Amino acid sequence: MRIALDAMGGDHAPGPIVAGAVQAVQAEQELTVVLVGDQAQIEPLLPPLEQRQRLEIFHCTQVITMDEKPVEGLRRKPDNSIKRSWELLASHKVDGLVSAGNTGAMVAGGHFLKRFLPPVLRPGIAAVLPTERGPCVLLDVGANIHAKPEHLYQYGLMGAIYARHILQVEQPRIGLMNVGEEEAKGHDLARDTHQLFDRSGIRDRFIGNVEGRDIHKGTADVVVCDGFVGNVVLKYSEGVFEFLMKIVHNELLAPLSSERDKAEQVWRELALRYDYSTYGGAPLLGIDGACIICHGSSGERAIKNALLVAARYARAHLNDIIVQELTANPPPTVDG
Amino acid sequence: MRIALDAMGGDHAPGPIVAGAVQAVQAEQELTVVLVGDQAQIEPLLPPLEQRQRLEIFHCTQVITMDEKPVEGLRRKPDNSIKRSWELLASHKVDGLVSAGNTGAMVAGGHFLKRFLPPVLRPGIAAVLPTERGPCVLLDVGANIHAKPEHLYQYGLMGAIYARHILQVEQPRIGLMNVGEEEAKGHDLARDTHQLFDRSGIRDRFIGNVEGRDIHKGTADVVVCDGFVGNVVLKYSEGVFEFLMKIVHNELLAPLSSERDKAEQVWRELALRYDYSTYGGAPLLGIDGACIICHGSSGERAIKNALLVAARYARAHLNDIIVQELTANPPPTVDG
Repeated sequence: MRIALDAMGGDHAPGPIVAGAVQAVQAEQELTVVLVGDQAQIEPLLPPLEQRQRLEIFHCTQVITMDEKPVEGLRRKPDNSIKRSWELLASHKVDGLVSAGNTGAMVAGGHFLKRFLPPVLRPGIAAVLPTERGPCVLLDVGANIHAKPEHLYQYGLMGAIYARHILQVEQPRIGLMNVGEEEAKGHDLARDTHQLFDRSGIRDRFIGNVEGRDIHKGTADVVVCDGFVGNVVLKYSEGVFEFLMKIVHNELLAPLSSERDKAEQVWRELALRYDYSTYGGAPLLGIDGACIICHGSSGERAIKNALLVAARYARAHLNDIIVQELTANPPPTVDG
Repeated sequence: MRIALDAMGGDHAPGPIVAGAVQAVQAEQELTVVLVGDQAQIEPLLPPLEQRQRLEIFHCTQVITMDEKPVEGLRRKPDNSIKRSWELLASHKVDGLVSAGNTGAMVAGGHFLKRFLPPVLRPGIAAVLPTERGPCVLLDVGANIHAKPEHLYQYGLMGAIYARHILQVEQPRIGLMNVGEEEAKGHDLARDTHQLFDRSGIRDRFIGNVEGRDIHKGTADVVVCDGFVGNVVLKYSEGVFEFLMKIVHNELLAPLSSERDKAEQVWRELALRYDYSTYGGAPLLGIDGACIICHGSSGERAIKNALLVAARYARAHLNDIIVQELTANPPPTVDG
């Protein structure tokens, strides 16, 4: 497995990005990481050449910054690390790519190169959230702001494949994010998507509408929504987690005395377990390759995990399964 | 102040609903509560007649259940408690109404009777969320699924008035829920709403886009969004709070020994402080009257607080201020 890593993308790049790559190749013997970025910055962060195994550098000179407008950045900087990573994928020099850089540029890079899997209408970013009953795949969380019912239908299928083959959920149940349980609830997109699932060949895997409060209950293993709603929820989840963990620390742990150290230790474990870095980034599903988008603030642990997920993704031939299932289950025609 | 209370609305009605009313009139000397519902069920829950002060019953025979389709329910059950409460408001027999019943029916009841304040295009439900810097008003959380930019603009103004006069936020800053900070981010609704605020007379109170993670940081005092997004976020916030508090209890508190009781006590206080019942329901802003919508599972504390908020709302003449500010600051015309 060869995975391209955008060494320049992320709030703290390239330090923790390169460190994550070094850890990943140690953890996974079949993985080679191609570090895409400025050789002069990357080289000193790597082990000496004679000890360096399965770590390559693909030199490029430009970086799209986190705040840059994605499409403009891609056009104005032809030698940027995200574009170069996509080109490595397009020319089959790597099996996947990982970036903690500008998310919009990552998505736009895929659009430019038209690296969609044949039956896929629109790729979607899938985030994995912890629940009372195991992981829940939420998608799309930001690739597709103007989603159509057929897109959400395909997200359901792709999310279920990801849940089954990467997260080991045996029979993933697909839910539709909505504002109430009844079928007729919500806006046109929600109602039309509900109809699509109901009339499709995968209706037995569709459990209907779910509400915001259902996510962490684990009511569904896959929850589909448009990229606006998903992005707001994902970022909200990060914010509320930070907020509550801070309160618990300040108000619940601080007043303890003899047992404070013990509690602090558990608190740190909890914070780590529910941290985004555990799941190692969000896959952009529907791409011909294993494309993992990481949080901008990713540290070495998050990057390492993302590289391992990309390798597992490629090894499981997930995209073959996606093509097969999407072709076998096209969205049904719904009268308007 | 006279407030109508839907005594039959809520998962556990009428028990805790009536109990909340009894507590509210004890706490607030100028408040009279008109309990709307089945006299035979309400009467036994009240103090004996000679000790009963400022508690009246308005008898009606029907109830719209929590799962009933709102518009159908209102039509099929002409003597239902929500409709009767709205009629009391329309005929000026009360200054406001409170219900923990079917939210859709509460909103639809207001639409039927056209009890909008003159300049208001669409009423919106405002939820109050705790943040690191005080309360944040999020609206709309479910009244208006198909919101237009002018609606979101008015929500900003109304939310700011609520924040200032009810939550004592001195100079409320209004933010627009979006998927990124830059002005050009998001779908058409978000971009057009951004333009409206930018060109309006209240542009100095508008801080631009905020993201999901900004809510609990307190970046804005008022955050506007369409009713679909707001509803998903509000329900998600309830779910994630329950999920995390349960984890903290099971994994952080349970292993403690000598200091466990102390920590349990703090945990209970935290759970209560961040519980929805503290803020006593969500006002439906834009209605000619003080209309407070409570959570379906509201207990007596939530109902009591909602009645007190309704009374404060009426006493502050909030609607006069809303009419005045909305008239003085109409949404600007935007080309395109």
